[in-house]
Amino acid sequence: MDEQTEQTLALLIRSTRTGALATFHDGEPNLAMVAVAFADDFSAFYIHVSRLGKHTRDMEKDARVSLLLTETDDGRADPQTLARLSIHGTADPVTKTDSGSERVKGIYLARFPEAKKLLSLGDFGFWRITPKEGRFVAGFAQAFNIVPETLKKISSL
Amino acid sequence: MDEQTEQTLALLIRSTRTGALATFHDGEPNLAMVAVAFADDFSAFYIHVSRLGKHTRDMEKDARVSLLLTETDDGRADPQTLARLSIHGTADPVTKTDSGSERVKGIYLARFPEAKKLLSLGDFGFWRITPKEGRFVAGFAQAFNIVPETLKKISSL
Repeated sequence: MDEQTEQTLALLIRSTRTGALATFHDGEPNLAMVAVAFADDFSAFYIHVSRLGKHTRDMEKDARVSLLLTETDDGRADPQTLARLSIHGTADPVTKTDSGSERVKGIYLARFPEAKKLLSLGDFGFWRITPKEGRFVAGFAQAFNIVPETLKKISSL
Repeated sequence: MDEQTEQTLALLIRSTRTGALATFHDGEPNLAMVAVAFADDFSAFYIHVSRLGKHTRDMEKDARVSLLLTETDDGRADPQTLARLSIHGTADPVTKTDSGSERVKGIYLARFPEAKKLLSLGDFGFWRITPKEGRFVAGFAQAFNIVPETLKKISSL
């Protein structure tokens, strides 16, 4: 990737507030929309989900997930040129005894202050998605494989 | 669903141009962004994909797919209130000998005229996704199970 493409990826991660989360449900892929926050160094993505949600129960059984962030559709003539990042990774609950739990909560609420009202509901919790590999499509026929080191590198842009 | 909620679902389908497609890839969910068109009666969704794409090769091996349509993020305070529809269904290639193939092409190109330039590339083809069941989240804590009859009913709204 050249630097401009790297900047496009960094901007995509920083500006896209919702993503598609794929989990395993009885052997079939299940999709849910999630609001997504991220670690400063792009080493992890954070979501806040209800224990009652199908996707949460899926993650409790099988930690393998995929996450897709798509540039917000601006109504351009060809939506195939929208940038998108798909990652494969593992999802782990952020427990309150987790040393980083207050940091995760802080990052998430800074991005989504409205989520504060859910904190008092007992069934909501934070999960950390750690990317293992991914694919970034910067536009038509411009695709790049992504590894955690790529994300770390571009997080400083 | 009351009529207002049904109208929200019909509007979501008609106004959302891209979706997240989940396929099976070596037993793991794979996610790709797709541009999505739909049959007038909401009985099928149509995508136009390259045979070189991972998701296309996945669909050739296993027809089970999921598709997520999320309302375009308008920057509202709480993105968890964005409407979204996830469906489970089967994906079948629309072959040129298929009696409905010209209709599918017409519907898709009416929505995405820019895709016309891909028609001459040999590796692109249309696929039909037929919903079996789904889940519509109209906003926070407003979720509804969807069956094909629901989609057919609301297509007249």
